[in-house]
Amino acid sequence: ATPTTAAQNVVIDRALLNAFKALPARFEDPKNPITPEKVELGRMLYFDTRLSKNQDVSCNSCHDLNKFGVDGKPFSTGHKKQLGGRNSPTVYNSGGHLLQFWDGRAANLEEQAKGPILNPVEMAMPSAERVVETVKSIPGYVTAFQKAFPGEADPVTYDNLAKAIGAFERQLVTPSRFDKFLAGDDKALSEAEKVGLKKFLDQGCQTCHNGAAIGGSLQKLGLVVPFQSKDQGRFDLTKKEADRMIFRVPTLRNVAKTAPYFHDGSVKDLQTAVKLMAQHQFGKQISDDDAKSIVTFLDSLTGELPKSYIAKPKLPASGPKTPKPDPS
Amino acid sequence: ATPTTAAQNVVIDRALLNAFKALPARFEDPKNPITPEKVELGRMLYFDTRLSKNQDVSCNSCHDLNKFGVDGKPFSTGHKKQLGGRNSPTVYNSGGHLLQFWDGRAANLEEQAKGPILNPVEMAMPSAERVVETVKSIPGYVTAFQKAFPGEADPVTYDNLAKAIGAFERQLVTPSRFDKFLAGDDKALSEAEKVGLKKFLDQGCQTCHNGAAIGGSLQKLGLVVPFQSKDQGRFDLTKKEADRMIFRVPTLRNVAKTAPYFHDGSVKDLQTAVKLMAQHQFGKQISDDDAKSIVTFLDSLTGELPKSYIAKPKLPASGPKTPKPDPS
Ligand code: HEC
Ligand code: HEC
Ligand code: HEC
Ligand code: HEC
Ligand SMILES: [Ca+2]
Ligand SMILES: [Ca+2]
Repeated sequence: ATPTTAAQNVVIDRALLNAFKALPARFEDPKNPITPEKVELGRMLYFDTRLSKNQDVSCNSCHDLNKFGVDGKPFSTGHKKQLGGRNSPTVYNSGGHLLQFWDGRAANLEEQAKGPILNPVEMAMPSAERVVETVKSIPGYVTAFQKAFPGEADPVTYDNLAKAIGAFERQLVTPSRFDKFLAGDDKALSEAEKVGLKKFLDQGCQTCHNGAAIGGSLQKLGLVVPFQSKDQGRFDLTKKEADRMIFRVPTLRNVAKTAPYFHDGSVKDLQTAVKLMAQHQFGKQISDDDAKSIVTFLDSLTGELPKSYIAKPKLPASGPKTPKPDPS
Repeated sequence: ATPTTAAQNVVIDRALLNAFKALPARFEDPKNPITPEKVELGRMLYFDTRLSKNQDVSCNSCHDLNKFGVDGKPFSTGHKKQLGGRNSPTVYNSGGHLLQFWDGRAANLEEQAKGPILNPVEMAMPSAERVVETVKSIPGYVTAFQKAFPGEADPVTYDNLAKAIGAFERQLVTPSRFDKFLAGDDKALSEAEKVGLKKFLDQGCQTCHNGAAIGGSLQKLGLVVPFQSKDQGRFDLTKKEADRMIFRVPTLRNVAKTAPYFHDGSVKDLQTAVKLMAQHQFGKQISDDDAKSIVTFLDSLTGELPKSYIAKPKLPASGPKTPKPDPS
C-alpha cells in the first residue's frame, strides 16, 4: 500500500508557522556570555565522572551526546545504580525551553546544572563545597577556570562551574530541515512531511509545542482526559492545586530519537505518544494513519549532531589530593 | 434581529470541560496556611495607604475590590501620579495563576506582594526596613502581627507582611454560574451562553485559558500573527530570546468587568479583545457574531463579590513615631 496521505502539493498556511522559530546558533543569556574558554571548560566538566561520588557517573551518562542527549531508558541509573523517578530529557536545544526540568523548577541551564551533581540518586556529591574541593585538586581545572573567568580572585566556585556547563549546553543545538522550511525553503520538507505538519497544525499541537524548541512552557498533562500518574508534576514541588499535573512541555526536536516518551518514560513508540497526546490534550481519537503522518513530520525535526563540538575532550589529570571514588 | 446563535439544546462535550476547574473556596499554599488572624491583618494592610511613601496609595487604589480588583485604567497611577507601564490585573482568583505578574516573575502571591510597596512608580517606599519601621510605629499592627504569627519573637517582618496580604488574597475568589455548570448543573448556563462556550471550545481557547482561574500559564502573545508592543513581556525580564512576547495568560474570570484589556490596556471592549485573540493566537478572523457569542459566554464568568470579606476594615491608629506623608 502506498501512503495516500502523501498527496501532491499540500499547502501550509505560512502564517501558522509563526508559532515556531528557527533554531538560533546558540541560546544566549546575557547573564552568562558564551566564551570559547567557558565552553571548553564546560565540555570537560560535562564528561567528567569525578563530579560524582563514586566517580562513575557524569552528565553524559544520562544525557549521552552521541545519542541525542538521552540514555534511552525510562528512568536513568545514577549513583549505586539507583533509579531516578523521571525520564531524562534531552540536553539538546533545552536552552530554548522557558524553564528547565519536567516541573520547570529551574529558570535556566546554569541553575539546572547545580541540581544533578548534588542529587543523591544521580551524582550524589555530598555538598557544593566538596565539588569545589575536588575541582581545585585537579591542577588542569584550576587553570581552565582561571581562563574561563579571567580577573576573578577565586574563580573555582560552584556558580562558575554551573556557568561553564551552561555555556557549553547553550550551543547544543541541532538545526534540521524544518529550520530551512521555516526560513522559506518550501522544498526542504517532503510532501509527506508537509501533510503531517498540516495535521499537526490542524490539531493545534503548536499551541503547546512552539517556539524554537517546539516546546518549553508549562501545561497540564491530561487537559481533557486525565493522564494516570503518581507523579503530579509541578504540584509535587509547590503543593498548590493549580499546579497539579502541570509539566513543562518537552521539545519535539529530535523526538524520534528520544524514546521512551513522557515524564515517566511509559511509552515506547512515537506513534502511540502522538495518539495519547490527541486523546489526553484534546479528547480526540486520531486514526493510526493520522498519527503516522504526524510522526513523519516529527521525523523532520531530527537534526544533525555537532560531532566535533561534542567529541569527548581529554580530561585534566587528578592531583595528589583528588578524592578517591566513594562507593558508599 | 433575534440572535440566531442561541439555538436550542446545544450539547457541550463534557470531557472538554476537564480543561477547567471549579473555583476552590480558597487557593491554599502549604507554605502559608490561612488563618483568620492572618487574613484580618492582611485585609488591613491591603487597604492601608501608610504603606506608601506619600500615604496616598494602597493596594486597593489599583486593585479596587469593589470594582472586581481593577481600577479600569489602561495604566494605573501610583506615587506622584506616575503612570506604570502595564495594566493592573485583577487580584480576584489570581491565586489560581501558576505565576504572578504579566511576565510571571513572581512564583506566588506572597512573593508578589513585596513588589509594589517598594516599586518607585507604585507605592514608592524606600526600603523594606522602612516599611517594617512604619508598621512597628503603629501599635495596633504590632498586636495584629503577634496574633497572626504567634510564637515568633519578632513577628513584624517584611516577609510576614507579605504572608498576611497573601493569606487575605488567597480567599479573593468569585464563583459564578460557570462553576455550577462545571459541577454538572446543565441549566446553570443559558442556551446562548452554551453556544458561546461551544465556540470557545471549538476554537481551542482552553489550551491557554484553563484551570480554575481560566488562565495562568506562560504563553506567547501573537503566536501566529505578531502583536505590536514595545513591551516584550518576559524577554524584558530575562533577555532570553525564547521569552520574547511571552506573557502570563490572564484569568478570564470577571473579564467582562476588567476592561481595558491586554497587558497594555490597549483594547477597550471585550468583543474586540476576543477577535484579536482569534487573530493573533490562531491566525483566524472570526465574525462579529461569533465574537459576540463568546462574549456572552465570558459574561457567565462574572462572579459574586464577597461583600463582607472585602469591606474596608477600621485601620489601627498611627503612633507618635509613625512617619508623615512624604510627597517627594
Ligand atoms: C543519573 C541521571 C542523570 C545525571 C547524572 C544527570 N542528569 Fe540531567 N536529568 C536527568 C533527569 C531524570 C532529568 C529530569 C528530572 C526532572 O525533571 O525532575 C534531568 C534534567 C536535566 C535537564 C533539563 C532538561 C529539560 O529540558 O528540562 C538538563 C539541562 C540536564 N538534566 C543536564 C544535566 C547536566 C548538565 C548534568 C551533569 C552536571 C546532568 N544533567 C546529570 C538525569 C540525569
Ligand atoms: C495543552 C498542551 C499540549 C498540547 C495541545 C499538546 N501537547 Fe504534547 N505534550 C504536552 C506536555 C505537557 C507534554 C509532557 C507530558 C509529560 O509530562 O510526560 C507533552 C509531550 C508530548 C510528547 C512526548 C515528548 C517526549 O519527549 O516525551 C509528544 C510526542 C507530544 N507531546 C506530541 C504532541 C502532539 C503531536 C500534539 C498534537 C496532537 C500535542 N503534543 C499536543 C503538552 C501538550
Ligand atoms: C500603582 C498601582 C498598583 C499598586 C499600588 C499595586 N499594584 Fe498590584 N499590580 C499593578 C500592576 C500594573 C500590576 C502588573 C505589573 C506587571 O505585571 O508587571 C500588578 C500586579 C499585581 C498582582 C499580580 C496579579 C496577576 O494575576 O499576575 C497582584 C496579586 C497584585 N498586583 C497585588 C497587589 C498588592 C497586594 C498590592 C499592595 C501591596 C498592589 N498590588 C499594589 C498595579 C498596582
Ligand atoms: C496560545 C495561547 C492563547 C490562546 C490560544 C488564547 N489566548 Fe487569550 N490570552 C493569551 C495571552 C498570553 C493573553 C495576555 C496577552 C497580553 O499580554 O496582553 C491573553 C489575553 C486574553 C484576553 C484579555 C484578558 C485581559 O484581562 O486582558 C481575552 C479576553 C482572551 N485572551 C480571550 C481568548 C479567547 C476568547 C481565545 C480563543 C479565541 C483565546 N483567548 C485564546 C493566550 C492565549
Ligand atoms: Ca524521552
Ligand atoms: Ca484589564
